[in-house]
Amino acid sequence: MNAPWSISRPNVKVLDCTIRDGGLVNNHRFSDKFVRAVYDTCVAAGVDYMEIGYKNSDKFFSREEMGPWKFCNEEDLRRVVGDNPSKLKLACMADAGKSNWKHDIIPASESVLDMIRVAFYDYQIDEALEMIQDASEKGYEVSANMMAISVVDEITLDKCLERVAASAASTIVVVDSYGYLITEQTEYLIKKYMNFASKNNKEVGIHAHNNQQLAFANTIESMRHGATRVDATISGLGRGAGNCPMELLLAFLKDNPKYNLRSIYECLENEFITLRKELEWGPYPEYMITGFFNQHPRSAIKARDSQETKDHYTQFFDQIKAAGNK
Amino acid sequence: MNAPWSISRPNVKVLDCTIRDGGLVNNHRFSDKFVRAVYDTCVAAGVDYMEIGYKNSDKFFSREEMGPWKFCNEEDLRRVVGDNPSKLKLACMADAGKSNWKHDIIPASESVLDMIRVAFYDYQIDEALEMIQDASEKGYEVSANMMAISVVDEITLDKCLERVAASAASTIVVVDSYGYLITEQTEYLIKKYMNFASKNNKEVGIHAHNNQQLAFANTIESMRHGATRVDATISGLGRGAGNCPMELLLAFLKDNPKYNLRSIYECLENEFITLRKELEWGPYPEYMITGFFNQHPRSAIKARDSQETKDHYTQFFDQIKAAGNK
Repeated sequence: MNAPWSISRPNVKVLDCTIRDGGLVNNHRFSDKFVRAVYDTCVAAGVDYMEIGYKNSDKFFSREEMGPWKFCNEEDLRRVVGDNPSKLKLACMADAGKSNWKHDIIPASESVLDMIRVAFYDYQIDEALEMIQDASEKGYEVSANMMAISVVDEITLDKCLERVAASAASTIVVVDSYGYLITEQTEYLIKKYMNFASKNNKEVGIHAHNNQQLAFANTIESMRHGATRVDATISGLGRGAGNCPMELLLAFLKDNPKYNLRSIYECLENEFITLRKELEWGPYPEYMITGFFNQHPRSAIKARDSQETKDHYTQFFDQIKAAGNK
Repeated sequence: MNAPWSISRPNVKVLDCTIRDGGLVNNHRFSDKFVRAVYDTCVAAGVDYMEIGYKNSDKFFSREEMGPWKFCNEEDLRRVVGDNPSKLKLACMADAGKSNWKHDIIPASESVLDMIRVAFYDYQIDEALEMIQDASEKGYEVSANMMAISVVDEITLDKCLERVAASAASTIVVVDSYGYLITEQTEYLIKKYMNFASKNNKEVGIHAHNNQQLAFANTIESMRHGATRVDATISGLGRGAGNCPMELLLAFLKDNPKYNLRSIYECLENEFITLRKELEWGPYPEYMITGFFNQHPRSAIKARDSQETKDHYTQFFDQIKAAGNK
C-alpha cells in the first residue's frame, strides 16, 4: 500500500508558525534560546518559511505584558537569526486593527524578513487591502489571511475573495481559526479559494486548528484539492487546541527530498518535553466543544485556565450550547 | 456553513469499543463500576453497540494476569449489565488463534451478547471462516474484522475479502491496526470493501487508530464512501495511540436525533479525568513513528513503558526506520 499515495508534491511549501501561533499561548514570551532552536530546526528540516511572530504595535499591546515576538523589532529578530544565512524564508504576521504597519514595517531590503502575512476579519477588508499594498510596495511577498472563515457568510466571503484576488497578495490562506471545519467543508472552501486565486496566478494556503483532531486531515485534504501553502507547528503548538503538527505533515511529504523529518523529532525531544510542563495546548474536550459549536476558543481557554472551571465538561457544554446557534 | 454538511446519516450504526480496545492498555482490568459507567453512557448516548471485551480463552491467557474482560464469561457480563434491558446491543470480540470459540461461545439465546466480532490476520482466514459460521449458527450477528490491513498485499486482501464476502458475516470491517492509513488510502479500501460487501448485502465498517491523528478523519472519510458501521471509544481510549474519539464522532452525527452527545462529556468528566492519571494512551510521538513506518505499535508501547526509553524520540525514530522497509 504505497505506490499511489507516494508523491513528492514538489509545489507544496511548508510554513512553520510555531513561534507565531504558539505565542498566543504564552503572550509571546519565548526565550531567545527556544526561538533559535525552532529556527535551527526549520533550517535543518528544510521547511520553506518560518513565521517568527507578530508585527503588531505597542500602541495596542503592552510591552510589559507581551514578549518580543508580538512586535518582532528588527533587532530582536537579528539577535536570534543573524542575517539568516539560510534558504529558510522568514515571515511575520501583521493584524489589521492592531499594527502600525505604515511605520513599523520597514522596507524589505532593510529587513531580515521576506514575507508579511496580513491577518484580518472580513469587516477589516479595507485596511487589509491597504496593508497588502503597502507591504508589497515595500518589497515583501504578501499573504492574505482572512480569519474565522467558518462564521463568514458566503456572499461576504465571495466579495472579500474577489477583492483579495485583485490585490498584490500572492497567497490567500483558508484560516479555520475556530477549528470548526470538517474535511468536506475544507474541500469546498479550498476549491472556492482556488477558483478566485487561480485566475490571478495566486496560490492557496491552509491554516488549520486541531479542536476536532482534524488539523492534519484538513491540511492533507487541502493539498488534494490544490493548496500549495500549508501551515504547521512543531508538536502542534498553538492557541487552544493547537495547529497541524509539523511531525505529521513532514511525514506525509516524505517523498519530497528537501524535507528532513528526523530534525523535528530531535526538536520535540530537546525542547518540547520541557515546554509541555510549562504550557498547555491540544485538543482538550473544552476545545472540541467550542470547535464543534463554531465559536472562538477564548471561552475554552478561560475555562481551562482556572482549577475551578477546568475539566467541568458538562457545565461547559451546556454553556457553549446555550451561547451557540445550533 | 451548515446546510450541505448537515445530514443525519440514518443508516450509520456506532459501536463503542472503549472497554474492549481499552482493555489492551490495562490487561482488561477495568472495575465493574467503570464498565457499568461506560455501559450506562452508551445507553444514554444512544450508541448502537457496545463491545464489552474479548471472548478469548484462558488456555492462551492467564486469569492472574488478565482481567475478566479478556474472557467475558456470561456471569461477569451479567454482573454489570444484568439482562441488558435496553436498546443497546452487546458485542464481544473473539480472536482467531486465541479463543476456544466452539466451547466458550454459548448459543445467543442463552447469552446477553448480540454480536460476535471475529478478529483475525490474513493467514488465519480458514479458522476465521469457521468461527464466523459457528457464531452465526449459534444465532449471533457476526462481524469479520481482518486486522493489520496496511501490511496485507492486494492479492491476499482480495482473496480474503472474496471468501469473507461469501460467509455468514453481515459486516466486514476495515481495521487499521497500525494507524498507518491516510484518508486517501481509507477511501480506496472502503470502496474496495464496499465492492465485495454490496454484492452480498453486507455492510462495511471502519476501526481506526489515532497514531497520525487521523482516526476521526478516516472514520468520516469511510462514511463518505459508504461505510455504515463505525467504531469509536470514549476519550479515544485504546491501545497505543488510541481510537476514534466517541465525543468527536457523535458531534459529527449531530443531526441524527438518536444520539446524545452530552452524555459522553458527562462520562469524560466523571470517569476519564481519573483514568488519565492511571493509564496512558494517545498520539504520542512514538506512536506517530510506528504508524508512519507502518509497524505494530508494540515497540512504541514498550518504549513508553520505561522511564529510560520514553520520550527518546530520535533514537526511537532511528530504530523504527532501520526496522522498517522505507
